[in-house]
Amino acid sequence: MEGSGAPPAAPPSGGEGLWSPAGSLGEGGGEVTALEYVRERLIREEDSIVFALVERAKFPQNGGDYESWLEFFVRQSEEIFAKVGRYLNPEEVPFYPENLPEPLIRPKFNEFLHPAAASVNMSHEIFKIYVGELTKLVAREGDDGDYGSTVGSDLVCLQALSRRIHFGRFMAEVKFRESPEDYIPLIKAKDRKGLMELLTFADVEAAVKRRVAKKAMIFGQDVELDEKTRGARVEPKYKVDPEVAARIYGEWVIPLTKTVQVEYLLKRLSSAASSLNHRFS
Amino acid sequence: MEGSGAPPAAPPSGGEGLWSPAGSLGEGGGEVTALEYVRERLIREEDSIVFALVERAKFPQNGGDYESWLEFFVRQSEEIFAKVGRYLNPEEVPFYPENLPEPLIRPKFNEFLHPAAASVNMSHEIFKIYVGELTKLVAREGDDGDYGSTVGSDLVCLQALSRRIHFGRFMAEVKFRESPEDYIPLIKAKDRKGLMELLTFADVEAAVKRRVAKKAMIFGQDVELDEKTRGARVEPKYKVDPEVAARIYGEWVIPLTKTVQVEYLLKRLSSAASSLNHRFS
Repeated sequence: MEGSGAPPAAPPSGGEGLWSPAGSLGEGGGEVTALEYVRERLIREEDSIVFALVERAKFPQNGGDYESWLEFFVRQSEEIFAKVGRYLNPEEVPFYPENLPEPLIRPKFNEFLHPAAASVNMSHEIFKIYVGELTKLVAREGDDGDYGSTVGSDLVCLQALSRRIHFGRFMAEVKFRESPEDYIPLIKAKDRKGLMELLTFADVEAAVKRRVAKKAMIFGQDVELDEKTRGARVEPKYKVDPEVAARIYGEWVIPLTKTVQVEYLLKRLSSAASSLNHRFS
Repeated sequence: MEGSGAPPAAPPSGGEGLWSPAGSLGEGGGEVTALEYVRERLIREEDSIVFALVERAKFPQNGGDYESWLEFFVRQSEEIFAKVGRYLNPEEVPFYPENLPEPLIRPKFNEFLHPAAASVNMSHEIFKIYVGELTKLVAREGDDGDYGSTVGSDLVCLQALSRRIHFGRFMAEVKFRESPEDYIPLIKAKDRKGLMELLTFADVEAAVKRRVAKKAMIFGQDVELDEKTRGARVEPKYKVDPEVAARIYGEWVIPLTKTVQVEYLLKRLSSAASSLNHRFS
């Protein structure tokens, strides 16, 4: 297909067994429980998010009409991603799901989630918080007009944040399967507050924030070969303030992930659920 | 423009003074010489490349028709990037420059390079090496069919590598302006070998490779809050082998950057050059 923008004629054969959280997708390759797998993935996503924030810090905040150009870029990019089958992966949620073209490749994924998962979508909130709050904390002030580089970096950030936050659906599903008896009464009572309490572990959240801050220090440092030069500095310089990285998790990433879990669980017993429970348990 | 894929009606006013290597683009903001600026940028690009490789390691190598799907994705993505004006930035070189749509935004960039820079393009070589060699070193074997996630990660890698390698044009221009008397005789004699020798500093290249390996260790480690757990491990695990990262620089990134410099310099005195020399010196 040299010299042509047309898609390859023959789609490849779809992969097998995607989203099998009992190990086959683990980077290490070893067999792990669903809960361990989900935990590993969440920790790995932290790296992706911190990398993306550090990369975003290369560019200024931009202003004026920038948000509209970013939306334009994200919409058009998602059309291409859709063609390559990205949104068949239940981990990937588009920001603008309406009017996406049909996939030209159809990889197979295990149906791990309740079908109602498709309607749990925080993309609008994520986009709004990202442009309204997050980039102002991470990027320097100014607008150099060079939007073509910034939009690419923004898309990577947005996709990483969305993946982490929507991963809450997998977290909720794994927790539900481990102890349905804890969740079913609260779901039946539509007790959002009770569910949120059941999903909240203040010590774990504090540890996540500390780890994210540590990652911002490690990934956002200026690595130098000569350690002596570094020792001489009064204050280490980080490309993204570790406090800001922790705050992004504390104020938005963790709460939105919990909201995703609650919204997913509230739909977990809906009509289609009985057949699914039968299939999986 | 809620709900629409159309571009914003009014393009923003272009930024001023882009590509002014005498400081205004430095992340630190301070005034630096052109040579210092170029050096800082190259070191920063190392971080971007190592981040991108670590991210690529999340996905398998993929096989079969994957390369064609990647080409399809890159071509279509570059069309969108072109619309947002990315390739007006002289640092950004498209992989498939033919038939790109007109930019809808036109940021202004300083004309720092000789116009012949536009014809120095290693994209074909970079793409070929990337799919043929690099991903095999960085990603695990296998093909899960989930191309929609991998293509995004590949595009980020390709763009980072291309930016670093084509940055050779800026390096060459800065060096030429600092001591034209060293370069002009070799350029006039079309002495590729002599130019390559003049641009080669074995000790600097060795230091770059060591620093890239160190970055792969630092950015590709599993960051843990509890240092004790980490100390107990026999062997630290890196997401990208530091030796591989150094090899990628030693075998491809550094040599291709030097080839870009040589090819640029060979065109540096071509017809348009006299007026440019007049304008800049």
